Amino acid sequence: MAKGQVAQVSVSKDWIDFGIGQPQLDNLPLEQLEAGANHRFERKDRSILAYGIEKGNGQFRIALADFLGLQYGNAVDPDQLFITGGVSQALDMICALKTRPGDTVIVEEPSYFLALRIFADYKLKVIGTPIDANGIIIDELEKRLKKHKPAFVYTIPVFHNPAGVTQSPKRRNKLTHLSEKYDFLIVADEVYQLLNYNSVPPPPMAYCDDSRRVLSLGSFSKILAPGLKLGWMQAKPNQLSPFTSCGYLESGGGLNPFVSGIVSSVIELGLQESYLKRLKKIYKDRMTTLSDALRQKIPALKFRDPSGGYFIWANLPDGADNELLLAEAKKHKVSYQPGIKFSSSKGLRDHLRLCFAYYRKQDLVKGVQRLARAIEMERP
Amino acid sequence: MAKGQVAQVSVSKDWIDFGIGQPQLDNLPLEQLEAGANHRFERKDRSILAYGIEKGNGQFRIALADFLGLQYGNAVDPDQLFITGGVSQALDMICALKTRPGDTVIVEEPSYFLALRIFADYKLKVIGTPIDANGIIIDELEKRLKKHKPAFVYTIPVFHNPAGVTQSPKRRNKLTHLSEKYDFLIVADEVYQLLNYNSVPPPPMAYCDDSRRVLSLGSFSKILAPGLKLGWMQAKPNQLSPFTSCGYLESGGGLNPFVSGIVSSVIELGLQESYLKRLKKIYKDRMTTLSDALRQKIPALKFRDPSGGYFIWANLPDGADNELLLAEAKKHKVSYQPGIKFSSSKGLRDHLRLCFAYYRKQDLVKGVQRLARAIEMERP
Repeated sequence: MAKGQVAQVSVSKDWIDFGIGQPQLDNLPLEQLEAGANHRFERKDRSILAYGIEKGNGQFRIALADFLGLQYGNAVDPDQLFITGGVSQALDMICALKTRPGDTVIVEEPSYFLALRIFADYKLKVIGTPIDANGIIIDELEKRLKKHKPAFVYTIPVFHNPAGVTQSPKRRNKLTHLSEKYDFLIVADEVYQLLNYNSVPPPPMAYCDDSRRVLSLGSFSKILAPGLKLGWMQAKPNQLSPFTSCGYLESGGGLNPFVSGIVSSVIELGLQESYLKRLKKIYKDRMTTLSDALRQKIPALKFRDPSGGYFIWANLPDGADNELLLAEAKKHKVSYQPGIKFSSSKGLRDHLRLCFAYYRKQDLVKGVQRLARAIEMERP
Repeated sequence: MAKGQVAQVSVSKDWIDFGIGQPQLDNLPLEQLEAGANHRFERKDRSILAYGIEKGNGQFRIALADFLGLQYGNAVDPDQLFITGGVSQALDMICALKTRPGDTVIVEEPSYFLALRIFADYKLKVIGTPIDANGIIIDELEKRLKKHKPAFVYTIPVFHNPAGVTQSPKRRNKLTHLSEKYDFLIVADEVYQLLNYNSVPPPPMAYCDDSRRVLSLGSFSKILAPGLKLGWMQAKPNQLSPFTSCGYLESGGGLNPFVSGIVSSVIELGLQESYLKRLKKIYKDRMTTLSDALRQKIPALKFRDPSGGYFIWANLPDGADNELLLAEAKKHKVSYQPGIKFSSSKGLRDHLRLCFAYYRKQDLVKGVQRLARAIEMERP
């Protein structure tokens, strides 16, 4: 790590690393945050500097509910919002307060690889359940529920990371119905909910029938900036209370009241909405560029076109070896996330995850050309 | 909770609640944060909005090390700093990564009551060990170490909350020596370290001999603003690595890079130093006012004069009943924290904690007058 390094990733300039699942530095909304900060400071309201109320800055929860309500096309009750430090922080807190070492959690196969790392830190037993183009396969899940008693099912129901798929409304309702029947929590990671490029996906799982056991997790990391460490949990008030009354928050106060104050202003000034519009336009273009380039240059690679989020999840040509390919790709200064990382059972070796959010279009094309050459070299 | 409430506490205007252990709203440094934000935004450095490096914003760690080094009179190595979301967040993380349900932790009797709540959330077994005017009584601690195998000893070695005492250098070294002999971590909550009003206390416990097992926890909550959710852990790099490599941070990135950027500028502009000077002057005045008023109006109340921090820890007159007194006090619109809250064994019923940081001098005097009348009514 270089002394003074600020950001988590630092990529060599001449590399194309499709593995990076982050927004591009040049696009981060510094001007919007500056305008929000100025607006907030002008109010001379010192309460954003005090210990915050446990549920989260109340003015911010009202502004956030207004913004989300418009986006979802469904009203959001500020009393059903708890302000978090982002989805990772929320997952960490859920593990801390809702599990004990040795408990079982069920995850999708594939699932977000770093969530798996959090579950490992809490010594949870992870069981995978398969998904298809419409999300979790309900019968397969129920088979597992008959054998295991999970503390929760962790699902990414919208623009899945890595698979790109969105769970259908019908399956969502079946899932929440199962949560009643088998008494488990549904932890819905909906961090890509608002990054839809073609059509509006179903609203968060908190809006399903039988949603009493649903915790819907949202974040500003993908729609504004990850460095803010700001997100939310939407759930019934009785589900929120174990979080808002825990020792950590009683001692330290609610999460990020100062940043919440600034982001309240970003929302009130309409800057969140306009920035999100701009992001969606950029990402839609990049998504199309990447999928077109892949189809043209590496026709052997199979994938579904995503319609939101950050990722394309592709199948390697028959017989290609992911491990050898990754080594070969790196010789061509291109990289990606290999499928095995997203598997709770060391499978998915024939898959790779490509992120289209981080790079400009010309770099995406350049990366695909390099990957094509690497695959050509590795073809059996 | 009122809709839109931002701050954690909301006190009726005509009450004096000595129980509030928080900075006063009117004194919170909004202008300093505004100047820091402007300075940071002018640099056009978007990296403060990206996922932060796990150890914490590197520019900030350098600025913080410079500031702390001057304050401690001891050099601080930025590589021995890990940026946290404050002491409560650090305690939460230590419990998550360093304990399992049923593990033992040893705390001082009395100890910070909300740390006890965090330990309860992690289902830890809490053993109290007595302190005196010089902090932990080492022989008493060793007796307990012979019977129990704690994951850590939680100590507040400087301007203790609630007891006000500071652990002597000799005892600090004995404590770290025991940590080697019995193999436990020392979690040193040093949140009041820089709020010294008469003389400079010993440097953080990370500077002791045999400090390989010491985690020194600091925070901006008491020297700048709690709403920032920003603090640090100082320890040997091998002690920091379980934290900086955990799943939560690998997924979410380092803590609060955006706020860290702004506070870097607050430090660089000299505003942290000047604000701390101002705070120390204000608090010293208030401390003297409260102790003088107590001595004058309630001579039966016994206490040691603190020389830093936020609190006076007082003994009730013989025979007074804390529970009855608190009820009586509330009739007089005055309150405090009863001793039992700070006890891991439901003792300390004859003590009360009075905070002198939150109220202006005239209110402190008014509060003491009310408390005197309440004690007068309750005198047996």
